[in-house]
Amino acid sequence: MSKEIPYKIYLTEEEMPKEWYNVRADMKNKPAPLLNPGTLKPMTAEELSAVFCDELVKQELDDTTRFIEIPEEIRNFYKMYRPSPLVRAYCLEKKLGTPAKIYYKFEGNNTSGSHKLNSAIAQAYYAKKQGLKGVTTETGAGQWGTALSMACSYFELDCKVFMVKVSYEQKPFRREVMRTYGASVTPSPSETTNIGKKILAAHPGTTGSLGCAISEAVEVATSTPGYRYVLGSVLNQVLLHQSVIGLEAKAALDKYGIKPDVIIGCAGGGSNLGGLIAPFMGEKLRGEADYQIIAIEPASCPSFTRGKYAYDFCDTGMVCPLSKMYTLGSDFIPAPNHAGGLRYHGMSTTLSQLYDDGLMEARSVKQTEVFEAAETFARVEGILPAPESSHAIKAAIDEAMKCKETGEEKTIVFGLTGTGYFDLVAYEKFHDGLMEDYVPTDAELEASWAKLPKVE
Amino acid sequence: MSKEIPYKIYLTEEEMPKEWYNVRADMKNKPAPLLNPGTLKPMTAEELSAVFCDELVKQELDDTTRFIEIPEEIRNFYKMYRPSPLVRAYCLEKKLGTPAKIYYKFEGNNTSGSHKLNSAIAQAYYAKKQGLKGVTTETGAGQWGTALSMACSYFELDCKVFMVKVSYEQKPFRREVMRTYGASVTPSPSETTNIGKKILAAHPGTTGSLGCAISEAVEVATSTPGYRYVLGSVLNQVLLHQSVIGLEAKAALDKYGIKPDVIIGCAGGGSNLGGLIAPFMGEKLRGEADYQIIAIEPASCPSFTRGKYAYDFCDTGMVCPLSKMYTLGSDFIPAPNHAGGLRYHGMSTTLSQLYDDGLMEARSVKQTEVFEAAETFARVEGILPAPESSHAIKAAIDEAMKCKETGEEKTIVFGLTGTGYFDLVAYEKFHDGLMEDYVPTDAELEASWAKLPKVE
Repeated sequence: MSKEIPYKIYLTEEEMPKEWYNVRADMKNKPAPLLNPGTLKPMTAEELSAVFCDELVKQELDDTTRFIEIPEEIRNFYKMYRPSPLVRAYCLEKKLGTPAKIYYKFEGNNTSGSHKLNSAIAQAYYAKKQGLKGVTTETGAGQWGTALSMACSYFELDCKVFMVKVSYEQKPFRREVMRTYGASVTPSPSETTNIGKKILAAHPGTTGSLGCAISEAVEVATSTPGYRYVLGSVLNQVLLHQSVIGLEAKAALDKYGIKPDVIIGCAGGGSNLGGLIAPFMGEKLRGEADYQIIAIEPASCPSFTRGKYAYDFCDTGMVCPLSKMYTLGSDFIPAPNHAGGLRYHGMSTTLSQLYDDGLMEARSVKQTEVFEAAETFARVEGILPAPESSHAIKAAIDEAMKCKETGEEKTIVFGLTGTGYFDLVAYEKFHDGLMEDYVPTDAELEASWAKLPKVE
Repeated sequence: MSKEIPYKIYLTEEEMPKEWYNVRADMKNKPAPLLNPGTLKPMTAEELSAVFCDELVKQELDDTTRFIEIPEEIRNFYKMYRPSPLVRAYCLEKKLGTPAKIYYKFEGNNTSGSHKLNSAIAQAYYAKKQGLKGVTTETGAGQWGTALSMACSYFELDCKVFMVKVSYEQKPFRREVMRTYGASVTPSPSETTNIGKKILAAHPGTTGSLGCAISEAVEVATSTPGYRYVLGSVLNQVLLHQSVIGLEAKAALDKYGIKPDVIIGCAGGGSNLGGLIAPFMGEKLRGEADYQIIAIEPASCPSFTRGKYAYDFCDTGMVCPLSKMYTLGSDFIPAPNHAGGLRYHGMSTTLSQLYDDGLMEARSVKQTEVFEAAETFARVEGILPAPESSHAIKAAIDEAMKCKETGEEKTIVFGLTGTGYFDLVAYEKFHDGLMEDYVPTDAELEASWAKLPKVE
């Protein structure tokens, strides 16, 4: 290509995706269905509608429609902060002295600070359309809660957020942002729900987990008229909405005739990873192109790399449907690492199936090396990255350094999901040399798996 | 115009300015020269070179060259976070029900969180080019300090920041960001300088001011070999670098054939306002077009609206050159309002002259009404604004509401200088109804003016 690659590739508003891409339509082995925890039969639309909005239930169950229209109201909201730039990391390449070409899709340029807003606005839209009063949810790092607060404020919906206690304490200012957008925020586990009380009794002093917070939010949604529960990751519907990341990234690359070799995303529940890789995985599934796709997760919460592929509870309180996924067990509470968004015990069913089918690989990294990568990145590329996103940075740097050894000019694309402005407590620990690297023992995992539901 | 206006107008990298615009070249009444505080004669280039980098001294004194080339290294850095978007505030317009068309130039999409990086990178570049070891500076809200840390890290220069104590305490995380970029941060006034000790002795328990912090930074710069002092606002050179804001905004408007009627910027030392209005003011000075240009400042620190146009000290310690400006007196320490970036006692000499010549107007607003405007804006436009920027939002909303009354379809452009992610303590106070509105008494101002230097 003779065309010079700019530092940032922006699509025009006309070039922005008008449809989400549903990767399940191209999968031969479809993701396993959600099961009713009582009957162990696949959840029906009717059963799911007690928890989720009707239109979202439809999206959750649809594994055949390839493209789903993005409603105009959502596209208009997207225009306030999208298209997000695809950035050529010229300065990082120079710093590393690598022949690799590094790109990152930067999703942090909005007040929620991450990609989470892409699905939050969609879920709020469908809740509003259904005439609901409000929604409940959980949040880990606070990014999803902030995103949902913004989306609910835009559509004038009530928003109740259960925030994992460790993040609530590490990120006091997150609460204030959510409050600015009119949401209520409760640290989880809390005394405000039956499940919260039960968990607190069993694990006094727990720092919480996404699994606990989900249980509390679901309890409130299903016991309050006019409310439904919404979730920021894991679900098929969320991956569908997040496909906007990958679709934009691919359109930007195509504009300049760039074909990536390696695509890297951090993985907590899978929302960013699933969204970023969607159209590339689609080409791979249809046999049109090949890509090396890498999921990166924290060594302290290694669902892909050390998890078991099995049906499990999505939440600690075991009130949600069962999902087949790579899991550390719903009872697993990860050590308090600083990537709150990557502390979920399980993984998206769709991604779990793709991983099990050998269509992508996974690696785990320790948090001190993640923060080292974050600082290197910040100093040359300017952006202060979120700890979650920095997992992908670490892997991208590793790949680029391999290219330096071999002389290969690979094109690497990674997802920079968000900014670290609310993670300064973690950065401070890192600077002061007080950061620790936790890795669960095999015995811990075995103990947690002992509680897996019995599904043949 | 039949062309539909997108939500965000982005320039391409080719369309980005290659030269800064020096508004002084078009002024009939030139800004008054800096004076040597001892001799009361205009400062020579040689005298200024003890404090500032040589190339920046040249820019400071040049009031005839209309365009000054932006060095390629700086343009490359700009490409990492610029062009910044010119956003059409469709959602705010709808919320207000106004026929006015509102645009904002958003400078917050970079880790420093504000426009300050535009001048920081320029000043760091010239310091590096001169072979210096490092630079010293002061910071109020922390935005300038962060920006300078980022710029110094990029060029591998040492960076010593004196941070106004009240901001240091309100914004603990700012320090950690600066540290990530390798800077040292000292709360001011401090015991590390002679001037700091003197100020602490005279005002025990003071929360500090930009004037104090400047004195400390200048003392360290002039007493440490290989160091110079850099400043984030007030100076002519800073307005020159910040003209990139206005040049981009004007190019974006021109692209769609839009002529603004009203241009609004918040004013602390004048860096954002001077930069935003530069090319528009140029047209006004040359008689090519007319615009209503409005400076907005806090009622607690009202340099334009209640200040005296006189020669004054730029700093509390009286070590800097004298500058003719609208001033509250260098001894004036504003009440602890939450817009740390707008707490300077004086104002850019260039803007002071333009204001005195009747080429722009000024208004002051109280902080509770500023935070009300900020929250209204955040809820519909998504972005959580900095308190400083929210002064301009408040004025833009006021203008738009006037249009609603009169039915006029005015085009309003304002500067959204930055984000409020590090201002959550202030937002919390606002939400809790604990925010107070301070306004200095006439007696306070008279007392402060009593110490104005005697210059006829």
